[in-house]
Amino acid sequence: MPILNKDMTLCISLSARPSNNGTRFHNYLYDALGLNWIYKAFAPTDLAQAIAGVRGLGIRGCAVSMPYKEDVIALVDRMDPSAAAIDSVNTIVNDSGVLTAYNTDYTAIAQLIARNALDPAWSVLLRGSGGMAKATAAAFRDAGFTDVTIVARNESAGRGLAELYGFAWAPELGDRTADVLVNVTPIGMAGGPDAESLSFPVSAVDAARVVFDVVALPAETPLIKAGRAAGKTVISGAEVMTIQALEQFVLYTGMRPTDEQVRAAEEFMRAQ
Amino acid sequence: MPILNKDMTLCISLSARPSNNGTRFHNYLYDALGLNWIYKAFAPTDLAQAIAGVRGLGIRGCAVSMPYKEDVIALVDRMDPSAAAIDSVNTIVNDSGVLTAYNTDYTAIAQLIARNALDPAWSVLLRGSGGMAKATAAAFRDAGFTDVTIVARNESAGRGLAELYGFAWAPELGDRTADVLVNVTPIGMAGGPDAESLSFPVSAVDAARVVFDVVALPAETPLIKAGRAAGKTVISGAEVMTIQALEQFVLYTGMRPTDEQVRAAEEFMRAQ
Repeated sequence: MPILNKDMTLCISLSARPSNNGTRFHNYLYDALGLNWIYKAFAPTDLAQAIAGVRGLGIRGCAVSMPYKEDVIALVDRMDPSAAAIDSVNTIVNDSGVLTAYNTDYTAIAQLIARNALDPAWSVLLRGSGGMAKATAAAFRDAGFTDVTIVARNESAGRGLAELYGFAWAPELGDRTADVLVNVTPIGMAGGPDAESLSFPVSAVDAARVVFDVVALPAETPLIKAGRAAGKTVISGAEVMTIQALEQFVLYTGMRPTDEQVRAAEEFMRAQ
Repeated sequence: MPILNKDMTLCISLSARPSNNGTRFHNYLYDALGLNWIYKAFAPTDLAQAIAGVRGLGIRGCAVSMPYKEDVIALVDRMDPSAAAIDSVNTIVNDSGVLTAYNTDYTAIAQLIARNALDPAWSVLLRGSGGMAKATAAAFRDAGFTDVTIVARNESAGRGLAELYGFAWAPELGDRTADVLVNVTPIGMAGGPDAESLSFPVSAVDAARVVFDVVALPAETPLIKAGRAAGKTVISGAEVMTIQALEQFVLYTGMRPTDEQVRAAEEFMRAQ
């Protein structure tokens, strides 16, 4: 890393429980691209004061994680469509004191739908009803998908999300199948209670064209492994995480690193 | 420098025209002492929002320079006597959201008066009437000096400062002499219009015991050189700058580096 100096542009993240991912990913790319920038994660003591600090200190960019993604809306000046579409912010860009909010999770999922050429005529089963499920559902809706069923035990959250986008709701998977299976629950997440569990039954995986797991850690969740074993198109949460971080980097710096630089930054991020 | 990580404690400075001095001095010592800390200078766009950011982001320490040393008083929670004595702040320490203001310029000058065993019975000529002149005059007053003349062309500032501490005021040096000559004007400052000028005439230097130049750049001002040539005790602004930065470091971290570490940090700071 370069010797710290007064002229460095600072970007930060705000999260109740910061990880080292953003700090390592962004600082690696600043260094690789020769930018005199630094990035550091913060666990703010007060969100409004932290955002005041973004303005007052001229901090260029600010990632926003749990539990601040909704509360921060009242503190910014403008909402980009990516954030307005889901009333959720994960990125703030400071242009000379004007704060614009984005949601690059939404952007990342939309990119992955397009890159993997998912057909809007296909049916989708989407498990989950939290903030990330909302970003995912919005991206599928905006890509033209209509045959989508939100599967969530919590009726008010699940039905609410389904109604928001004109989708169906079901409390349980049962023996449902679809062309695209999307997991946006913590099932399969490293360190969680269901780390070893499959978020969809093997029969559903076999009947699908695509499995998409938004869980990022590990990259190879049980669902991703099952999809790969069955020869399906797989889209991983690790891809979502990298693309959302990359799009933050592009929004902050105006520069787009090469695919190779991004892969190296990802490796550096994981080598903790 | 270490690889940046989420757990680093941040200290900053606020100044309209930041230099690299603090950033280099503090980061060098963090590294030397194995502290997972970083320091960066900022030119804030809004002082109140910047101080809100110190609270909201949990920034541990904040140096304050021109032109914020007085305005920041209304934004802190407590004034240490070093700052209260001169209504001027150059350091803020954040203890879990409680901001205490200090002035380590005052502390540094008081230390240098003591270390060089200046006798309170000695007479003092002090040129200047700005914020740093106030810190200097207060330190001499608090060390017990009474025979002090403030020399400043600006009558309201000069007379006001003199009256505050029970000292005399004179608009011009004339052929005055004293045991201690103290320059707190920009005369002799590198890059300034009077960079080559002596702030006191050679005759006054010859008649003095001590010459003290608060100008820090260059370390060897014309006054310091003249004092050294005449075999006087010399106290330089570079010493003031190092001690005030060191005392900030101690206030922030609770750790006191060795003299050798401080000398190395000073060298690193100057090697820009």
